[in-house]
Amino acid sequence: MIHSTAIISPNATLGSNVTIGAFSIVHDHVVISDNTTIGNYCEIGLPSALAKKQSLKIGDNSVIRSHSVIYIGSDIGANFHSGHYVSIRENSLIGEHCQIGSRGDIQGDCEIGNYTKMHADVHIGKQSKIGNYVWLFPEVLLTNDPMPPSDTLLGVSIEDFAVLAAKVLVLPGVAIGKDAVVAAGTLVKDDIPEGKLVNGNPSKIMCDAKVLRMHDNPKIKAYPWRERFHRGYSESDIQSWFNEK
Amino acid sequence: MIHSTAIISPNATLGSNVTIGAFSIVHDHVVISDNTTIGNYCEIGLPSALAKKQSLKIGDNSVIRSHSVIYIGSDIGANFHSGHYVSIRENSLIGEHCQIGSRGDIQGDCEIGNYTKMHADVHIGKQSKIGNYVWLFPEVLLTNDPMPPSDTLLGVSIEDFAVLAAKVLVLPGVAIGKDAVVAAGTLVKDDIPEGKLVNGNPSKIMCDAKVLRMHDNPKIKAYPWRERFHRGYSESDIQSWFNEK
Amino acid sequence: MIHSTAIISPNATLGSNVTIGAFSIVHDHVVISDNTTIGNYCEIGLPSALAKKQSLKIGDNSVIRSHSVIYIGSDIGANFHSGHYVSIRENSLIGEHCQIGSRGDIQGDCEIGNYTKMHADVHIGKQSKIGNYVWLFPEVLLTNDPMPPSDTLLGVSIEDFAVLAAKVLVLPGVAIGKDAVVAAGTLVKDDIPEGKLVNGNPSKIMCDAKVLRMHDNPKIKAYPWRERFHRGYSESDIQSWFNEK
Repeated sequence: MIHSTAIISPNATLGSNVTIGAFSIVHDHVVISDNTTIGNYCEIGLPSALAKKQSLKIGDNSVIRSHSVIYIGSDIGANFHSGHYVSIRENSLIGEHCQIGSRGDIQGDCEIGNYTKMHADVHIGKQSKIGNYVWLFPEVLLTNDPMPPSDTLLGVSIEDFAVLAAKVLVLPGVAIGKDAVVAAGTLVKDDIPEGKLVNGNPSKIMCDAKVLRMHDNPKIKAYPWRERFHRGYSESDIQSWFNEK
Repeated sequence: MIHSTAIISPNATLGSNVTIGAFSIVHDHVVISDNTTIGNYCEIGLPSALAKKQSLKIGDNSVIRSHSVIYIGSDIGANFHSGHYVSIRENSLIGEHCQIGSRGDIQGDCEIGNYTKMHADVHIGKQSKIGNYVWLFPEVLLTNDPMPPSDTLLGVSIEDFAVLAAKVLVLPGVAIGKDAVVAAGTLVKDDIPEGKLVNGNPSKIMCDAKVLRMHDNPKIKAYPWRERFHRGYSESDIQSWFNEK
Repeated sequence: MIHSTAIISPNATLGSNVTIGAFSIVHDHVVISDNTTIGNYCEIGLPSALAKKQSLKIGDNSVIRSHSVIYIGSDIGANFHSGHYVSIRENSLIGEHCQIGSRGDIQGDCEIGNYTKMHADVHIGKQSKIGNYVWLFPEVLLTNDPMPPSDTLLGVSIEDFAVLAAKVLVLPGVAIGKDAVVAAGTLVKDDIPEGKLVNGNPSKIMCDAKVLRMHDNPKIKAYPWRERFHRGYSESDIQSWFNEK
């Protein structure tokens, strides 16, 4: 399952049933766990002086699509799925069952929980902290420098179950609360309390997100989305959401 | 014209005078028509369980630039030109004489007419329907989920000759009329009637687009653009526009 | 230091201590100067009929990261650093000590001074003119067509030391003055005088940028940034800034 054109370091560790695509490169001290597939033209474990540890682990049952670049120094949990052209810099912790769409960019020193899903072109600035079950839609951008250029890095934080719709821009250091919903195209300047809906440029708090109804069925509350949308989550996870509630 | 490092499936069909670049991959059941050029590091016909048919056709006289990825299951007409790093997912119908700029992303199940041109970084959500002679400028994003995350997909529709300028964001299900003009940076929430100019966040209808004059010559009406801009179109097309008018 | 899988034209000129990564391609009439490193999957010197000269020079001590594409016909100064997936079209002049982040796109016929730094996803339209010590943050987009589609190209101009924060969109032909600061998410429609702070959609001049104070220390003026931020610049440059002042 290792393509004959792939270049695999003798110091890399490949689990059982691992697939490595054509023209891909796996560097030293990379661990690729069982049943994981690396597409073509990927470079995995790129050396970097900025890495706090000289190793990289990618969990089992993961799929990394073609033309992606992952630096040394991160940990990526099981059941990870990436699109094409994804780049992940050093020192990031990514939980299990996460997804990053094509051209996603994790710029380093980030923490991302479990089951967090990013559509295409999501760019996560250094030192961002993102919880579990978060959704980030296309072209969301999390920034980190409050007075650019400077040496200060104030990462964005996003709590569990929050939703950031397409082209949302979040300014440095903003904290987005649990179950918050940020409408498409919003420029988020201020912290968002739990469960609120915000929109606009600059952002304003509009209401509790739970007042929104589904587009095609006004009897169904749209948010918190976990009460109505369960595709891709395990039964035990879903059960835990309801127990919590 | 097939580079020695390219990997071509014996089940692919290449027309006459086809060029395949270095390190490129052509999968099973791909048909590449006469006089078409595939750049380097391209992956053409990527298998997918989401494809409604297990084949891909790329029309003649096309150019697909380096590092592009096209999935199985689409049909791309003749005289297609793509930039670099372009990705096209399954089940899309793309007409003749279309262009997609670098990093363009057609996310699947889309219909795109003839002579539609996209600049760099245009991202077309699933189930979008785009007519003929449409212009999409850099970083235009067409979305499709009205209450994200959900299982509902409401694609955007765009009629012939419409123009969407840079960084325009179109919300799910919006219908953009023939000859409409959307100014740069607009967030389009509502349908746009034929021939109207809209701008702002959120979008407002400003006026008929035909009242605009050219920047460097106020005697010339700027829109409909087909009355003044003919580069890249055939004589018979141009004649048909005037006959229609 | 030339990887065995790289494809180097016999008509390319490589200086001493040059590194060329795996699966990379260097075309005819490319000059890569001493101590420069080209990453994997890069295509350097792509032929183009649009190039005004059939050569490309990349200065010494430069680093071009993987999956980048540089066309023939440009000049790139010493100490250039690019991210991954960077594309540079024909006929651009790029000074010394410049940086372009991942997925940066220089679309041709541009002039860029010395020490100008672009974060990820900065897209520079054709015929832009950018001075020295300019900062462009993620997803800045410089446009050039005042009535799209048309044959008119009005490039944006940006003077020395200006700062454009994340997701700023600049309309065609706009002139941004020295030391100007453009807040994140701004749509810039009008020229910006020297030293002014602008924000909003559409942009408004808010105040002199020099009234801003640092986020974590209100005793320190935030702008002009060169009075407080010196990382990555030479002593002689910094001294010249203070002499000027």
